[in-house]
Amino acid sequence: MTVFAVIGHVAKTTGDFTLNDMPGGAGRMDVLCRCVNTSLFLSHDLRRDVTVYAVLLGGTDAPKTVMISGEKVRYLNPDERSAGSLIRKALEIPAGEEFRESTKGVFVRRGGLDRLLREYEFSVLDEGGMDIAAAKDLPGAFILSDHMDFTADEQELMKCLPKYSVGPRVLHADHTITVVLNCIDRRMAGIE
Amino acid sequence: MTVFAVIGHVAKTTGDFTLNDMPGGAGRMDVLCRCVNTSLFLSHDLRRDVTVYAVLLGGTDAPKTVMISGEKVRYLNPDERSAGSLIRKALEIPAGEEFRESTKGVFVRRGGLDRLLREYEFSVLDEGGMDIAAAKDLPGAFILSDHMDFTADEQELMKCLPKYSVGPRVLHADHTITVVLNCIDRRMAGIE
Repeated sequence: MTVFAVIGHVAKTTGDFTLNDMPGGAGRMDVLCRCVNTSLFLSHDLRRDVTVYAVLLGGTDAPKTVMISGEKVRYLNPDERSAGSLIRKALEIPAGEEFRESTKGVFVRRGGLDRLLREYEFSVLDEGGMDIAAAKDLPGAFILSDHMDFTADEQELMKCLPKYSVGPRVLHADHTITVVLNCIDRRMAGIE
Repeated sequence: MTVFAVIGHVAKTTGDFTLNDMPGGAGRMDVLCRCVNTSLFLSHDLRRDVTVYAVLLGGTDAPKTVMISGEKVRYLNPDERSAGSLIRKALEIPAGEEFRESTKGVFVRRGGLDRLLREYEFSVLDEGGMDIAAAKDLPGAFILSDHMDFTADEQELMKCLPKYSVGPRVLHADHTITVVLNCIDRRMAGIE
């Protein structure tokens, strides 16, 4: 299984936002939506072995974490509004300490990065990291930031984790995920 | 310069669609929007050396071609609605035989694939092609399809063109573009 966790530094944690203004009123929720979609979609199929976490830090009810399971998710289409709609529904149910399912394959709980870091052996996708194509063994869990840099506190929490980049240019979070998945696909197929 | 041309088989050619329903009423315009965005965006920057063509074949005024120049474009944000808004504005102005600018860096004209094929030495991005990572020299212009397969007529028009794939899994058009650009970035930086 492959895991991606994306930190939404200003993303809302309550469902009172409109899908017509995800970059503005929802706190760059559009970035999270694109990351969900690039993590899970194949042509006419879903990546059933991928799970995505959206760590939402910007709202009045922060932190919350939304988990989307590629194995279980339903009602997800490739457009941004579709992922936004599922995330919004997750933020509309009461969040507890443990994950609760809001729609098929979409779950929400309280808590943020520190808790998630204890649950997986993450590597960090960061422009300063080692080229992932040159990694001997690929990690199974990746953490990355939205349109903002990691904060000093986040960097402190992750200072001992391996860091990887995806090439010579600095890419958007969703494009970074696509490159990582292509790298994984190639390794699994024995093509490098 | 790198060129991407994406065929929108059912995409509208008139501006009378809502940004709230690009997958439905606009004929999977969301696919075209994502392709525009993945072609042009870097983190906090644009790929000024990329031009994207959206070949729109589904509307009542088909065929039309919208060109977005990475060098010249303004008012483009990374969310789908932003690209959709610029494409819609292009479809609202009278289209002639030559490209006319609708907003900064966005142009529209009548005509479709056959005309575009005479203007660039395209390669086709297609799951049946040779792995692009193994190509000795990378092409400069790529053509790809939206969520549908190329039609028999399109395949006939392109039957002599080189064909490339981006790996062992079949990806969405926008993800395919991301992988191609990463491949180009790596070659230009001398990393493979």
